[in-house]
Amino acid sequence: MTDRTDIDALIDLMARLPGLGPRSARRAVLHLIAKRGPLLTPLAALMQTVADTARECLNCGNIGTADICPICADDRRATGVICVVEDVADLWAMERSGTFRGRYHVLGGTLSALDSIGPEELHIPRLVDRVAAEEVTEVILALNATVDGQTTAHYIADQLEGRVALSSLAQGVPIGGELDYLDDGTITAALNARKPL
Amino acid sequence: MTDRTDIDALIDLMARLPGLGPRSARRAVLHLIAKRGPLLTPLAALMQTVADTARECLNCGNIGTADICPICADDRRATGVICVVEDVADLWAMERSGTFRGRYHVLGGTLSALDSIGPEELHIPRLVDRVAAEEVTEVILALNATVDGQTTAHYIADQLEGRVALSSLAQGVPIGGELDYLDDGTITAALNARKPL
Repeated sequence: MTDRTDIDALIDLMARLPGLGPRSARRAVLHLIAKRGPLLTPLAALMQTVADTARECLNCGNIGTADICPICADDRRATGVICVVEDVADLWAMERSGTFRGRYHVLGGTLSALDSIGPEELHIPRLVDRVAAEEVTEVILALNATVDGQTTAHYIADQLEGRVALSSLAQGVPIGGELDYLDDGTITAALNARKPL
Repeated sequence: MTDRTDIDALIDLMARLPGLGPRSARRAVLHLIAKRGPLLTPLAALMQTVADTARECLNCGNIGTADICPICADDRRATGVICVVEDVADLWAMERSGTFRGRYHVLGGTLSALDSIGPEELHIPRLVDRVAAEEVTEVILALNATVDGQTTAHYIADQLEGRVALSSLAQGVPIGGELDYLDDGTITAALNARKPL
């Protein structure tokens, strides 16, 4: 089937996306070919546009299409508070909640001796610079509640101690969560941080 | 975040692929942007190429990049045997097994009164024409072992009865299958079709 190489190559590339394997990549490609007009052609064009225009915000590390991302450029957002997140997906998750009205700082990962990811790779010096330059009064450490995330949070807290108010996200029972399905650590955290009614 | 519309639009389109939801589409797009050179740019180009060149084989309904697909054009493949499949994914699955050396006929679905899919929509008249024109001696009905698939197989068998030898795929225990996990129907079929050692 020498003639099918472009379609085969497309399947191979699609299978490299997270969440897709060889089988689902084949299904996706057949779906794309079946929906050529409404889906495949616009998708190809949009991918090219994003490939040409997407870039990291020079200030916070968010992904946008300009040197300074819309959040950093939005002067209605509070400048005195920086929310530190591991990656852009976490920033988007925070934005979907619609609660936070300050700025962000995207680390791009967590500290890891094993993968030789040190403070420089995570733009932690740039965070320290921003705290001084933007007259920041509070840094919220919204890192994942994993060992790596918490190690990184401790390191950043050490760097910034005494310069700004530091806080981290509350730990406890998630909304809609059932106690029976929660791990012991979460229940312990929720109990220790219990609030008077 | 008005500036993020291209990336947002890309996420929305990706979420329309089978097997991807909003969350995995966001992950996929972030992965694409992170791997812009090795993945996003070639994927955009390849999608455009496939959008421009992919077409249905005029003879069998397979997808390729020419009017006649490589299988129909390959004169080393037997012309006397046609394997009837529901869709192109099934044809690819048959080809991966590497066993069948004849030609195919892709129906593009199954008969369905509910969705008003009749014989014309499934290219069944074209199959009947091919049986006469290509001097076919055997038609293998490789339709899915579902109610719709079997209804369609019966209809085709009625149309072709007396003109060619008709066969269908054997039913039984799949290779590596454990009896305890098989449904009753499969065990019954395997028992009824038991073979002497």
